[in-house]
Amino acid sequence: MPLNLQIHTEHFTNPLYLESGRILEPYDIAYETYGELNDDKSNVVIVCHALTGSQHAAGIYKDETKAGWWDGLIGSKKAIDTDKYFVISSNVIGSCFGSTGPMSKQKSNGEYYRYKFPVVTVKDMVKAQRILFDRLNIHRVHAIVGGSMGGMQALAFAVHYPNFSSKIIAMAATHATQPWAIAFNKVAQESILKDPNFKQGYYDPQVIKEQGLSGMAVGRMAGHISYLSPESMATKFGREYKRTDGLYELFGKFQVESYLEYNGYNFTKWFDPLAYLYITKAINIFDLARGFDSLADALKKITSSIYLISFRDDLLFKNIEMKKIADTLGEIAYKKYDYIDIDSGYGHDAFLVELEKFEYYIKDALDG
Amino acid sequence: MPLNLQIHTEHFTNPLYLESGRILEPYDIAYETYGELNDDKSNVVIVCHALTGSQHAAGIYKDETKAGWWDGLIGSKKAIDTDKYFVISSNVIGSCFGSTGPMSKQKSNGEYYRYKFPVVTVKDMVKAQRILFDRLNIHRVHAIVGGSMGGMQALAFAVHYPNFSSKIIAMAATHATQPWAIAFNKVAQESILKDPNFKQGYYDPQVIKEQGLSGMAVGRMAGHISYLSPESMATKFGREYKRTDGLYELFGKFQVESYLEYNGYNFTKWFDPLAYLYITKAINIFDLARGFDSLADALKKITSSIYLISFRDDLLFKNIEMKKIADTLGEIAYKKYDYIDIDSGYGHDAFLVELEKFEYYIKDALDG
Repeated sequence: MPLNLQIHTEHFTNPLYLESGRILEPYDIAYETYGELNDDKSNVVIVCHALTGSQHAAGIYKDETKAGWWDGLIGSKKAIDTDKYFVISSNVIGSCFGSTGPMSKQKSNGEYYRYKFPVVTVKDMVKAQRILFDRLNIHRVHAIVGGSMGGMQALAFAVHYPNFSSKIIAMAATHATQPWAIAFNKVAQESILKDPNFKQGYYDPQVIKEQGLSGMAVGRMAGHISYLSPESMATKFGREYKRTDGLYELFGKFQVESYLEYNGYNFTKWFDPLAYLYITKAINIFDLARGFDSLADALKKITSSIYLISFRDDLLFKNIEMKKIADTLGEIAYKKYDYIDIDSGYGHDAFLVELEKFEYYIKDALDG
Repeated sequence: MPLNLQIHTEHFTNPLYLESGRILEPYDIAYETYGELNDDKSNVVIVCHALTGSQHAAGIYKDETKAGWWDGLIGSKKAIDTDKYFVISSNVIGSCFGSTGPMSKQKSNGEYYRYKFPVVTVKDMVKAQRILFDRLNIHRVHAIVGGSMGGMQALAFAVHYPNFSSKIIAMAATHATQPWAIAFNKVAQESILKDPNFKQGYYDPQVIKEQGLSGMAVGRMAGHISYLSPESMATKFGREYKRTDGLYELFGKFQVESYLEYNGYNFTKWFDPLAYLYITKAINIFDLARGFDSLADALKKITSSIYLISFRDDLLFKNIEMKKIADTLGEIAYKKYDYIDIDSGYGHDAFLVELEKFEYYIKDALDG
């Protein structure tokens, strides 16, 4: 059956009460759906995106050269089979693909929020999605699946909305962001903040889109390092040079340098700097145990079947962080969990690129 | 016995022929010595510094709050015992502590070299030191010791000046810089190059010293990540906040962020941006096998006893890179080598901070 990609935006006028104590009002949530909702609404699968992801998880638009970020996983006869499941993928609040974020306009004066946008947390992102699903008259779903910050959202759903999803599949995430990941985000944040073209947040978004923002490019380069690993880089790039046209090797550019440059500068044409600051902040302050006495106490709220996947050479969110969730579930004698550690060669990026290593697992978890 | 710290600079008027085909002329080399040269000049130990190191390896100047970078290792009764050994530590060419580098003045016009400074390699750094030692009438030494880029220099001495040193001790280095390390350097280079205050290399060095250079600060932050590891950061910082004065945790600053900020911005007050670009270039293009058919062919030149040390959780130069040197020495049936892998908790920085883990080994290697 065809993917049946549908594009929507919902507008909400009731205030969204945030973890910080502040209010977001009004707000939009942009989302896509794939497949067909069945009559008893029992076939809903939610997918949650990572830092720079969007609602566009599957399918390909007319003017695109690349399909959605999990297109290999979502579709007819794929692991998340749209012949069976009705898949919803929404853009998180704070992001820049149609959901309300720092470069949305304030209702009061029509000006961009910029720094007036409130700090949002992963819990807030999940809360907003929950309200979206209410609007869609979906009050319980079959599964929630996500990797990296998407995995954090899946875990937050499990803890804060324990009766909402039968199954939770979280991969390449953590129970609480560790200083190594915070440090990479810090480099990116600082690099953006110190770029004079960022204009202390008062940039013209159109100018950034056209001209790029080198501070964000540099930050993204640091990000790309954290998504790979020494081994995956050695395999991918080695010490090969970009140009082999006879220039003496002392003056050439390494392929890895070229890769970082291309991806760094290109990124600034499609992502918003303030959104990057807000979402990396949300990632840094993610702690599943916040508001509870301990991680164990947080996990005691869970009633879903929970599936945890880590990648052995993930350097951004180390496998021991996912394992700690599994171990803690074991300690509290929770029965409905499973944990696998996958031997991957792609570092953190594995959840986006090495689908063949875990798609069987997702399929079994969803269908089993 | 006292350390007998001596500070010197030697001036050379003969051209230094560089690996790039270019010439450096004239040039200075700044160096320090510790201990006393014995009568038959058989007690010389050379120490080689890393990227941002200097000739100031031991002792403390009157106006300093911190001793030299290997003060814990070099001194009376220490692993490199200045009661026995005459230690020489020189600042590499291309650096900014008195040896000729990009912010030295050209003889022809009295202007700073800036980008006119030639690309220098680790082999060039070693060649210049060899000429310095000739000037000092030292034609053979007891040992050469270095970590990180200092380890590269020790290895380059071993291969390119095989009869110069009886012993070579190289730690936390590599046979050829891998893309992971190149990527970190790329972030730093790009960050410096894109800072408008860098003025495309035409900055006023005094202004940088006084006001700092945020692009270099950001680059240094990325560097600091690479010197640590996820585990060492977790131990050192956890998810602790810098301020615990009652501010809600969503708005606080993590200790790891504060650490990176402090070290990043402080760095720009004492290191020169162009020197950083040139030395990271030298590190990126380091390949012990350049000019040979293979690493094995390069290593066949060695006649010294060679001691290799890696640190298990070093993420900048992975232990397998040092192990590859050891394995290759084994393959060519070289007898005089030893290799140890140290279980450290400090990442790459271990060679500077966890001296207690390897000082016994250095002492044995030197004295044995």
